[in-house]
Amino acid sequence: MILVITGNGKGKTTSSMGQIIRALGHNQKVCLVQLFKGENFYGEQKILTKLEGLDFFSFATKHPFCFKDISKEQVVKECEQAVNKLKEITRDNKYNLIVLEEFNIALRDKFIDEDLLLTIINELNKQANVVITGRGASNKLIELADLVSEVKEIKHPFNKGIPAQEGIEF
Amino acid sequence: MILVITGNGKGKTTSSMGQIIRALGHNQKVCLVQLFKGENFYGEQKILTKLEGLDFFSFATKHPFCFKDISKEQVVKECEQAVNKLKEITRDNKYNLIVLEEFNIALRDKFIDEDLLLTIINELNKQANVVITGRGASNKLIELADLVSEVKEIKHPFNKGIPAQEGIEF
Repeated sequence: MILVITGNGKGKTTSSMGQIIRALGHNQKVCLVQLFKGENFYGEQKILTKLEGLDFFSFATKHPFCFKDISKEQVVKECEQAVNKLKEITRDNKYNLIVLEEFNIALRDKFIDEDLLLTIINELNKQANVVITGRGASNKLIELADLVSEVKEIKHPFNKGIPAQEGIEF
Repeated sequence: MILVITGNGKGKTTSSMGQIIRALGHNQKVCLVQLFKGENFYGEQKILTKLEGLDFFSFATKHPFCFKDISKEQVVKECEQAVNKLKEITRDNKYNLIVLEEFNIALRDKFIDEDLLLTIINELNKQANVVITGRGASNKLIELADLVSEVKEIKHPFNKGIPAQEGIEF
């Protein structure tokens, strides 16, 4: 099954983390591939890396929108490594759940070729459930998916100028 | 901070589970109070109960909509126990994050008095972040909350007659 969690609201990454915990609870093998997130910043990373049954890979930890010291070319290169990892995962065929965190952003910003990624997602889906998160999911991906949830922002403290809070946003 | 995760789409419970993992990763003390869920059915429960720093309470495990052998009166009584637990939590004042799973449903179905629960949530919010999940959040709760995300169903395999899958829906 292909699941897409998109939208501009808070709850996409936490939702995929909950999905991982759920699958691990059924003794499933899980692989998490994260883009655009530092590896030791988000609270959940500290817990997840300790859990048995989960392999965790992180690529392109900096998005050029947030980090001005990184070029688009560099990010494209690092996303290429992520794609290579996905090809390796396809060959290894050992997971029940594969979570592609923030890959919607990589498509939106054209860091990864859409047709290439959709082909890989199709391949992964033959052996595992695949979750793709990030705002702005592409129409083609939505069409391909079996399940799509849009997390809509109704109210957010950022809009009142309240900064991100440890344990809530990271 | 009061956070509400509502809407008809998949991802509300998994989102609150991810939020728990995130908080635990920052060594926060977390309390999860669940309604309308069996205690040993969802994959995440098997993982969460093993994690240090989390206290997990479950009340009113059966919703009359799904289980015809339970009366509304019984559920109201069990929800009363949940409310008593919340009062105890207020007194103990030892958590950083308190997650009230499916309490929106208890309000919608009038198993818990709205003004009573909102007063308690306000009290809890003085000592911890409070997450409330479940579809159909009430207008008063949305008004009270600092952050509200609506998980909208865009596409769901149930609509094609595909049954719930282990590791995905439970």
